[in-house]
Amino acid sequence: MKEQTRISQAVIRRMPRYGRYLKDLQKKGVGKISSNQFSKLIGQTASQIRQDFNHFGGFGQQGYGYNVGELHQEVSMILGLDKKYKMVVVGAGNLGHAIINFTYYNQTGFTVDGIFETNQKLVGTKINNVEILDYVELEKYVSDNKIDIGIICTSKESAQDVADKLINAGIKGIWNFAPVDLVVSENVALENVHLSDSLYFLSYHVSKRK
Amino acid sequence: MKEQTRISQAVIRRMPRYGRYLKDLQKKGVGKISSNQFSKLIGQTASQIRQDFNHFGGFGQQGYGYNVGELHQEVSMILGLDKKYKMVVVGAGNLGHAIINFTYYNQTGFTVDGIFETNQKLVGTKINNVEILDYVELEKYVSDNKIDIGIICTSKESAQDVADKLINAGIKGIWNFAPVDLVVSENVALENVHLSDSLYFLSYHVSKRK
Repeated sequence: MKEQTRISQAVIRRMPRYGRYLKDLQKKGVGKISSNQFSKLIGQTASQIRQDFNHFGGFGQQGYGYNVGELHQEVSMILGLDKKYKMVVVGAGNLGHAIINFTYYNQTGFTVDGIFETNQKLVGTKINNVEILDYVELEKYVSDNKIDIGIICTSKESAQDVADKLINAGIKGIWNFAPVDLVVSENVALENVHLSDSLYFLSYHVSKRK
Repeated sequence: MKEQTRISQAVIRRMPRYGRYLKDLQKKGVGKISSNQFSKLIGQTASQIRQDFNHFGGFGQQGYGYNVGELHQEVSMILGLDKKYKMVVVGAGNLGHAIINFTYYNQTGFTVDGIFETNQKLVGTKINNVEILDYVELEKYVSDNKIDIGIICTSKESAQDVADKLINAGIKGIWNFAPVDLVVSENVALENVHLSDSLYFLSYHVSKRK
């Protein structure tokens, strides 16, 4: 897998979607697909898909199209899905709980190893057999257990403190669900899911239809 | 509020974020802010911010900057947050539950009026005092109660069927959490939150740091 050094984030953003479609095709037993068929299915031009894959060496064959299984594997490798990720969730409210379950039931390769709370009523209880620990133990736990990803499901007021502790402890990536823009050091990957922003983007469009 | 007919989606995507910062400034009692200060706070050039607002008539004053309260109100109106939205949630699993609570505790103007499930064990129980109804009643309920937004928290296998029923019943917008790309008619607004796509975007970046 050849990879150019600088790939636009937009290209990377499209990869998980390619992966989803390829996985579905594979499940349906489709062995190969022409670049035209794939383009129609995805709703992007064949040329853009080809360009996107060219960043990683290109996987199609002229006049043959794509081998679904191989391409799915390549996309998975591009996304790092051939590796294992240890994660902690900070904040075991409803959203934290949902993300823990989402990971548990839907994701292989990603494990929630620790859950952290300041609410002492929750500390000591379990979700999916993982014990909820006291927030004060977060840094030591992340550092001792070489956790890769920290998932922040706290209020926006607490989120930066959580991020700072995760970063101090050597976290590699943060998945942030708190409605705030975190300041993180450059060597830490940050991905936000801002539910309010998403809802308001929708309300913008719905308001025009009311 | 003057508004040009065609505004790029990227501009609209940035609006909720502007709104978040303005709300915070307002809470802190900041009455006005120079375009330079606002630019530094947001991490975008003053020129881009100005251009974004110009799509809606422009709200800054040369040499004065922005009136925080007024601008926050304008942004809220742009996003349709001066209106009320009736919503239904389909799928009352952990994610559905989290979204219901997120709306209940964090959003004014958006109400979850109905919750729908195929799981008969959940039908008849309540979340935040809203009764969970049988999925077979969805279409009639949405149509009778003039529901604006349908939130899909089902499996990907069921999601298109849910969307079709919502659309038949006259829904105006769909907030989709199922990991699938839905086909919707042009008069329906669609916003996706694809958690797996987001996690894999993060794993791409984390894998480079492992």
